[in-house]
Amino acid sequence: MADLPFVAPPARAGDRLDTIDTPALVLDLDACDANVAALHAQATAAGLAVRAHGKAHRCPELALRQLAAGAQGICVQKVGEAEGFAAAGVRDILVSNEVVAEAKLARLAALAARSGMRIAVCVDDPEPVDRLAAACAAQGARVDVMIEIDVGQGRCGVEQPEQALAIAARIAAAAPALRLRGLQAYHGSAQHYRGPGERADAIADAASKARRFRAALETAGHEIAEISGGGTGSFPNEAGAGVWTEIQAGSYALMDLDYRANDADPRAPKLRQALGVMATVISRRASHAVLDAGLKAFAVDSGLPAMRDPLWRVRGLSDEHAVVEPLEGAAALALDQRVMLDPGHCDPTVNLHDWIVAYRGERVEAVWPVLPRGASR
Amino acid sequence: MADLPFVAPPARAGDRLDTIDTPALVLDLDACDANVAALHAQATAAGLAVRAHGKAHRCPELALRQLAAGAQGICVQKVGEAEGFAAAGVRDILVSNEVVAEAKLARLAALAARSGMRIAVCVDDPEPVDRLAAACAAQGARVDVMIEIDVGQGRCGVEQPEQALAIAARIAAAAPALRLRGLQAYHGSAQHYRGPGERADAIADAASKARRFRAALETAGHEIAEISGGGTGSFPNEAGAGVWTEIQAGSYALMDLDYRANDADPRAPKLRQALGVMATVISRRASHAVLDAGLKAFAVDSGLPAMRDPLWRVRGLSDEHAVVEPLEGAAALALDQRVMLDPGHCDPTVNLHDWIVAYRGERVEAVWPVLPRGASR
Repeated sequence: MADLPFVAPPARAGDRLDTIDTPALVLDLDACDANVAALHAQATAAGLAVRAHGKAHRCPELALRQLAAGAQGICVQKVGEAEGFAAAGVRDILVSNEVVAEAKLARLAALAARSGMRIAVCVDDPEPVDRLAAACAAQGARVDVMIEIDVGQGRCGVEQPEQALAIAARIAAAAPALRLRGLQAYHGSAQHYRGPGERADAIADAASKARRFRAALETAGHEIAEISGGGTGSFPNEAGAGVWTEIQAGSYALMDLDYRANDADPRAPKLRQALGVMATVISRRASHAVLDAGLKAFAVDSGLPAMRDPLWRVRGLSDEHAVVEPLEGAAALALDQRVMLDPGHCDPTVNLHDWIVAYRGERVEAVWPVLPRGASR
Repeated sequence: MADLPFVAPPARAGDRLDTIDTPALVLDLDACDANVAALHAQATAAGLAVRAHGKAHRCPELALRQLAAGAQGICVQKVGEAEGFAAAGVRDILVSNEVVAEAKLARLAALAARSGMRIAVCVDDPEPVDRLAAACAAQGARVDVMIEIDVGQGRCGVEQPEQALAIAARIAAAAPALRLRGLQAYHGSAQHYRGPGERADAIADAASKARRFRAALETAGHEIAEISGGGTGSFPNEAGAGVWTEIQAGSYALMDLDYRANDADPRAPKLRQALGVMATVISRRASHAVLDAGLKAFAVDSGLPAMRDPLWRVRGLSDEHAVVEPLEGAAALALDQRVMLDPGHCDPTVNLHDWIVAYRGERVEAVWPVLPRGASR
C-alpha cells in the first residue's frame, strides 16, 4: 500500500508571522495560555478537575500544555484520538463517547493494558459491555466505564435510571476487567444557547437528572466516583451545581465565532480568540478581493469565518477561495498580502489542517502536528 | 519538529465492505469507471480534451485512472496539489487558479523544470507575471500561462480585454520562461444552477465573453491555443459551444447530492453516485440512531449528507456524530451495523479523509491515499 504523501509545514520556529505559507492554522500563544489559565483557575476554585477535550484541537503538544497547566487528563471522542494522544505521553484519557465495534474495543483495551494508563469509555447500552469486558480480559487490561445519561441533548445516553442500573450490573459482573467510574452527563447543545439564562436553566435540569441517576445507582450499591460534563459555553453552571466532579471544556483554549456569539455569563472569564487562519490575497478588484483559503481551510457548519479586520466582510467560500468585500472606510488589500480570519467553529476547522503554527507577537514559536484525519476512527 | 502521527487505513484489499473500520470514505469502482467512461466519451465525441480536476478527489491513483481513460492531463487549485500529483507520475498539470506568493511560484517553477513536465498556471493581474518569470528563469523552467477571464462567477479573472492584453504583453516579454497558452474561462457558479436552461444561458454568455477576449488577443498577435473551463454541471454546454478546447470536470467521477439536485440536462450522461461514507451505529433508541461520523467526516457547506437507505433521514451532525431518524416503514438499525451515506459536496468531503476505500460489489479492491491537508498550500 502506498504511503501517505507528505507536504512540508507552513512555517518554522523563528519565522516572521507575515511570511508563513498559507492557508495556515495559527494559534496566538499568549491568548491560548491566558484562556487555559483562566478556566483552570475557575474550575480549581470551584473544586472541579479539568478534563480538557482533545477533540477541539487534536494536538498532542497542546494537550501536554493543558496537563502542565493543571488538567487532570483529557477526553476525546474516538479511539484513534486516544491512541494519538497516548503516543505523545498523555496517560489519563476518557473516550467521552460510545464505542461498539469489536476491533475498536480491542484497540481501546490494548491502550488500557499499557503501563500507567488510565482509560475510560462511555456506554449507553448493555450490549457492548460484554464485548468490552472480553477485549479487556484478553489483554489483561482494565477499562473504566462512564454510563452516559441523556441530560437534554437527545443524542446518545440512557433516558431512564433502570437502563443505567442494567448497565451497571453488567459492568459489576465484568470486574475486574471493567469498573464503573461514574456518569457522563454532557449537554452539548446547551453550550450554544445564546442567553446565559437559557444555559443556566438547561444545566440546572441536567444537574437534577444527574442527581436522580446517581441516587438510583448508589441506592443499588454502585459507587459513582466521577460525574463528567460541562463545556466552554456552560461551565460556570456545572461548576456551581455541586454535582459534577470534572469539566470537559475544549474550545476554551482556542475559541471561535460561535462561542463568541453567546451572550456572556458574568461568572465566566473573558476568553480571547486564540485560533486563526492566515490567508493570502491572490486576486483583487475594486469590489472585492479573493483569498487562498476556502472550504478546505474553514469548517462552515456554524457559519462563515470572519476577517479579523472588521472593515472587511467574507461574502462566501468555495473549495479553495474566500471572496471578501470592503465596508466603508476599509483599507485596500494588496496582492500577496497576508490576512487573518477567525473560524466559525474551531473543532472541525482544526481538523482541516496538518499543523498548528503557534506564535507570540509576530514570531512563530513552534509548529505542532495535528492528529491525522484517520483519528476519527 | 515532530513527525505527523500515523493512523492505519480503514481497510485492506480483499476485506468485505461491511467489516471496514469507520468512518471511511468509500468509492464504488463500477460507478466511478462508468462515470469516467461516459463523460470522456462525450467530450471526445465533441472534439474536446478532458482535463480532469484533481481538486475533487486529491487522489493520485484516481488521477492515473482518469489519464488511462483518456484524460489529457489534470487541473488542480494549488501548487501543493500539483506537487502531490506530480510525485505520483502525472505530467500535464494546470493550476487553474492564481498563484502570487514568491515561495509558491518558486515551487511551481521547480516542478516545471523537471524533465517531461507540462505545467501551466492562471494569471489575472500583471503583477505576478514578472515574479513567475524570474522564478522560471532562475530554475531554467518554462511555465505556460492561462489568462483567467471572469465569465460570470465574479471571483477571480480579468473583466476587460484591455487587462488581458496588458498581461499578454508581459508574458510575451518574459519568453522563453513564460508562454501564453490560452484562456481560463470557468463559470463555477453555473455548475450548480438547477435548471438546464439557466446553465445553458450562463454558458452561452461565458462563450461570448471568451470569444471576445480571444479575438482581442489574436488581433494583437497573441496565439490562443487552449480555452479551458466547464465542469460536471455544465459541460454539455461547453462541449457544444465551439469555444472551449478542454473540459475541467472533477466531480463527475465521484458525484454528490448537490450535483444530483441539478435538474438533468437531456444531453448529459446519467452519472452514478460513486462516492460514499460508511459509518457505524453506536447508539440507538426508538426515535433515532446515532452514527460515528459527523462534521469531521462530511462537509456540510452544500447541506447535510443523506442516508443511502431512503427510509432514514439525517437530522443533524455534530463533530463526531450523525443523528438519523426513521421514516414510516424503516427497518430498525442494529448496534454496530454499517450504513452508507451520500455526501452533500464531494470535494471538501474527500478532503476530510486520509484514504479512499475503493470497492466493487462487496469487496475492497484497493485503498488509495488522499493528498494531505497541506496540499491546500
